[in-house]
Amino acid sequence: MAEFRKDLLTDRWVLIAEHRAARPDEFRDKAVRRIVAPCPFCAGHEDQTPSAVATYGENAWPDGGEPWQVRVVPNKYPAVQSDGHVTGITAGAQSARGRHEVIIESPRHVVTLSELTDVQVELTFLAYQDRLRCCRDETDLAYALVFKNARAEGGASLEHAHSQLIATPMVPCEVAQELAGAERFQQSCGECPFCAMLHGEIASGQRLVAATEHFVAVCPFASRFPYEVWVLPRVHGDRFEEDPHSAELARLVRDIVRRIESLLPGTAYNYWIHTAPLKRTSQSVFHWHVEVITRMSRMAGFELGAGYFINPVAPEQAANRLRSV
Amino acid sequence: MAEFRKDLLTDRWVLIAEHRAARPDEFRDKAVRRIVAPCPFCAGHEDQTPSAVATYGENAWPDGGEPWQVRVVPNKYPAVQSDGHVTGITAGAQSARGRHEVIIESPRHVVTLSELTDVQVELTFLAYQDRLRCCRDETDLAYALVFKNARAEGGASLEHAHSQLIATPMVPCEVAQELAGAERFQQSCGECPFCAMLHGEIASGQRLVAATEHFVAVCPFASRFPYEVWVLPRVHGDRFEEDPHSAELARLVRDIVRRIESLLPGTAYNYWIHTAPLKRTSQSVFHWHVEVITRMSRMAGFELGAGYFINPVAPEQAANRLRSV
Repeated sequence: MAEFRKDLLTDRWVLIAEHRAARPDEFRDKAVRRIVAPCPFCAGHEDQTPSAVATYGENAWPDGGEPWQVRVVPNKYPAVQSDGHVTGITAGAQSARGRHEVIIESPRHVVTLSELTDVQVELTFLAYQDRLRCCRDETDLAYALVFKNARAEGGASLEHAHSQLIATPMVPCEVAQELAGAERFQQSCGECPFCAMLHGEIASGQRLVAATEHFVAVCPFASRFPYEVWVLPRVHGDRFEEDPHSAELARLVRDIVRRIESLLPGTAYNYWIHTAPLKRTSQSVFHWHVEVITRMSRMAGFELGAGYFINPVAPEQAANRLRSV
Repeated sequence: MAEFRKDLLTDRWVLIAEHRAARPDEFRDKAVRRIVAPCPFCAGHEDQTPSAVATYGENAWPDGGEPWQVRVVPNKYPAVQSDGHVTGITAGAQSARGRHEVIIESPRHVVTLSELTDVQVELTFLAYQDRLRCCRDETDLAYALVFKNARAEGGASLEHAHSQLIATPMVPCEVAQELAGAERFQQSCGECPFCAMLHGEIASGQRLVAATEHFVAVCPFASRFPYEVWVLPRVHGDRFEEDPHSAELARLVRDIVRRIESLLPGTAYNYWIHTAPLKRTSQSVFHWHVEVITRMSRMAGFELGAGYFINPVAPEQAANRLRSV
């Protein structure tokens, strides 16, 4: 049975999930790409996945078009399970209770966010908000991460464009660190660090990639990955799922992916949404945002053994190139 | 110019190193493996690398054999530079002062530690100790990480078996976290957590892989990666470079790699040595060790966005299989 285990020295959580090795992998043999046929995410093959927990855009084209535009299903090989029970963490382990869903972003076999129609990309981000709000009702869950793995090097095991949501009983350490850092900054400087960063980046312009009415896209000063881009709302807010401008955000993130793919055709990428934990505990100083990264460079012994990242593309250079396309 | 940049929220260090993109990569095109010819690490092509800072086993076979067995050269595309100057960290950035060396493990074109002769593997670990001791004399350096990237998925850009040493002006966060955790454990439990772990693992045996007179190899309880193995000295000590049994360790690490490769032929792997920081600041409770990981599974959006690891092979299962080969 899957379980979370905690490293007692570093407080790092590991999810031991043996059943995950059984899932299909279209990319395993890299020389000859094997397509899982029929693709379980394509319209018409709905019986290949668990039953949908939500669908969006049904009959958007009733003239013989697709039965849905975006479809959310439980992951067939879940990293965490809704029927897992939470046990004590005394021994540094607990069973892997949680929720693991797949957001299928198109009824057709497209492979990247940049290929989605306006309707599909907007409904995809609406689905993110919807599913995040659903997780709030479950008392055992502390956090839900929405993320996307695109292409083999990005960690996708199926090619068809999709994102995922994994909800866990703990707040993940990446988010916990950002929360603690934001609180420290707020206490010492009297303002939200993300707001401060936004104002600084807009003023200087050297790491700015794009801006819309409600959002700004920048290459962060300490970018870990080549062409890393963060998208932040201009107005301070701690919860993505409460933002009324998700359609505008969806088109901006698609635009960022298109710019990246125009510079690096076919590149693997990931993005994830950092929003506040599901349960508000105190006055939150968090400022939600989307982090987009490319997977041009491999993490190796120095990165993993030391915890440093090596980025061969300076963010000022990356922003300049992304602006120009 | 390369520089270290610090993320102000998470204290994460990033090394912006644009010149690194210029280095050769035998693995870039995965379908057709391109060999950099002549291989700059093979004996006879010493003029293709910067001059050696150390060589070991010269004339081991004076009867027309190789001119050296192990050779250490400065990295031609260093991530950090010895002539970099340390500037203030006020703005969260400093120039990338440091040392970056390559340990070439054989004069012949072999690709993994398991192919090294006894002499080569022993001299390789002797070279690690030697180069670590050299870094202590430089006042600006705080830490030196010895690590190995084997095969393309492990982050190697050249195939010929080699390891690397990168020394930096800061203690890397992975090591700092282990140090802080060890100190916490010592204060609350009155003993070294690594010693406690060793005794527990030897007693239970379920995650034990191999043991020699002075060392024990175990799959750690919260293994992040499939077939992750840690090798620890039985006797408490904070510095690998002062351990008199490096030859025994070298053969044990080679044995571990052979066991892993026997289960997973041709797998990419990394290892690194966690030893104490270069300068002793207080009573250290650290217990040096080697961490070996495989790269079967890819890090994806959930791992990078949340900071969790997902491991599809339980360490008890991994240890059992590694013991059996």
